[in-house]
Amino acid sequence: MNATREWTTPAAVTIADVESAAERLAGQALVTPLIESPALSERLGGRVLIKPETLQRVGAFKFRGAYNRLSRLSGAQRKAGVVAFSSGNHAQGVALAARLLGMPALIVMPADAPKVKVDATRAYDAEVRFYDRAKDDREALAEAAAAERGAVVVPAFDDPLIIAGQGTVGLEIAAQAKATGASIDLLLGPVGGGGLMSGVSLAMRALSPAATLYGVEPAGFDDTRRSLQAGERRGAPPAPRSLCDALESPMPGKLTFPILRGHLTDVLTVTDAEVAAAMRYAFATLKLVVEPGGAVALAALLAGKLDLAGRTAAIILSGGNVDAELFARVLASDL
Amino acid sequence: MNATREWTTPAAVTIADVESAAERLAGQALVTPLIESPALSERLGGRVLIKPETLQRVGAFKFRGAYNRLSRLSGAQRKAGVVAFSSGNHAQGVALAARLLGMPALIVMPADAPKVKVDATRAYDAEVRFYDRAKDDREALAEAAAAERGAVVVPAFDDPLIIAGQGTVGLEIAAQAKATGASIDLLLGPVGGGGLMSGVSLAMRALSPAATLYGVEPAGFDDTRRSLQAGERRGAPPAPRSLCDALESPMPGKLTFPILRGHLTDVLTVTDAEVAAAMRYAFATLKLVVEPGGAVALAALLAGKLDLAGRTAAIILSGGNVDAELFARVLASDL
Repeated sequence: MNATREWTTPAAVTIADVESAAERLAGQALVTPLIESPALSERLGGRVLIKPETLQRVGAFKFRGAYNRLSRLSGAQRKAGVVAFSSGNHAQGVALAARLLGMPALIVMPADAPKVKVDATRAYDAEVRFYDRAKDDREALAEAAAAERGAVVVPAFDDPLIIAGQGTVGLEIAAQAKATGASIDLLLGPVGGGGLMSGVSLAMRALSPAATLYGVEPAGFDDTRRSLQAGERRGAPPAPRSLCDALESPMPGKLTFPILRGHLTDVLTVTDAEVAAAMRYAFATLKLVVEPGGAVALAALLAGKLDLAGRTAAIILSGGNVDAELFARVLASDL
Repeated sequence: MNATREWTTPAAVTIADVESAAERLAGQALVTPLIESPALSERLGGRVLIKPETLQRVGAFKFRGAYNRLSRLSGAQRKAGVVAFSSGNHAQGVALAARLLGMPALIVMPADAPKVKVDATRAYDAEVRFYDRAKDDREALAEAAAAERGAVVVPAFDDPLIIAGQGTVGLEIAAQAKATGASIDLLLGPVGGGGLMSGVSLAMRALSPAATLYGVEPAGFDDTRRSLQAGERRGAPPAPRSLCDALESPMPGKLTFPILRGHLTDVLTVTDAEVAAAMRYAFATLKLVVEPGGAVALAALLAGKLDLAGRTAAIILSGGNVDAELFARVLASDL
């Protein structure tokens, strides 16, 4: 890692890339609505705009980046197809994008990935190969599998086209807020590897420059928070599993980190209990199914980590792929 | 009941009333989005537009009619307040509308109403009085309570302002479909007392006249289906409880029936098992929390009761107020 080199990296992805991604995604990704819950706004003492990427194809924003990346492959590359490693949402995004673009996909997933994510990935016609989270090096496995078949490895976040694709979430938020006459004071979204929030940062900085941007990480997986404090990419100390299977990335990306560093005011952390409470609130009041990692921004607000009095916040609910068994346990306050 | 008199009744509510309701509801009710799920459309072989009134204030369309009705009360009437009887969603709609308009509300609810609906009604500051579904006459109880306090009884469906308010769902569907370039071939929505579908019928007939309209009832509570076949208002034979607590009305209304009769092509019925399957589908694929009565239109399509090949259907998911315990049982396929 070279901090100097990293500082020069933001130019690797620009707002123009995000806008190009939006053109490529038109008619493929859904424009998810920007919705409001007066009950939530009343509870928090401010106005909250909710971007439910739970309603996106594959149930998470990941389809955006995956489709943007895959649509740029050459004819020869399409024939050999793609390989991705992912705990689930990126897997589904790549699998569906590959199917839509007529190319084979192999997904390397942890053996303990949520069943709903494994089943959905297979339903999109992708081949699934499992690895052992404790023993195997998933990157090496993916690289080896890709070499075997001459396929392209599609990273989950550290890729300019992936970042640009996820950034279309921010383009939509800014445009939809403007259409309702709202002016966003702050925006919160989840951070795993940082693909979503780096892309969204580029879009918000261009279209809604007054908004303060916050990332949210699960406690124990606050590698981005630590990295921002240190001024360079850092991992978090080994932690037990988080409820947020989608956000257990070990370290921010080489491309995503400098963008996050340039745009995020802070990274908040939330506990599993706060995440579970947010999932229950989403069920009972918002009537939305949100997976643990998708609920961290809502969790941060419900836990009172920021004062919203008189302010307008946008939050991204990034995914809704949660096993029924886990969801039922969360509803029963068993977590 | 006088069929001749009933045939003259439709003029009691017109599209102009629905449009006036929309003006009164502006800034109070949410304009819920019209969303799409390519996965659902692919499965059904047609295009499906989803109107999730689950995302409406109080988690159901009922707020629209209640607010429209209550906003028309005189100053003196507002002081004495309102009384309503309801298994839950109308209760919440009336309770919230009363709070927003600064008037007291007493809600007469069955003792076995879903806890989530009772709790929410109380959370909107309404007084709740329970009745025994088997023994008590809820209408008589409500009338007596209203007489005590000089309050106005707010019917759940058989009232021109209630019908007009619910009809704004149809105005939005027609406008939102048009904005996306879609032309609706058929529309399905739930029928209990018929307030929603009579109002929606008026809106669709005016703005999207080519659409064929279908009501959906739970098996065993197909009073509207029977009434349409008979050409006059009929009750269904006594049946055990349905999973759809919101749709157990004994008979279509005096005002709603002639409107439904003039506009609905047919009324479909769905079993509890079909409803539970639709709730699971909404959870797993749409990422939406839908209560049993709110899921009947989706249930009818998933059960293949209409052929969608090459056609565009709009469905109304009318509410999402379901107890966590029941929802968990449905997810576990225990129903």
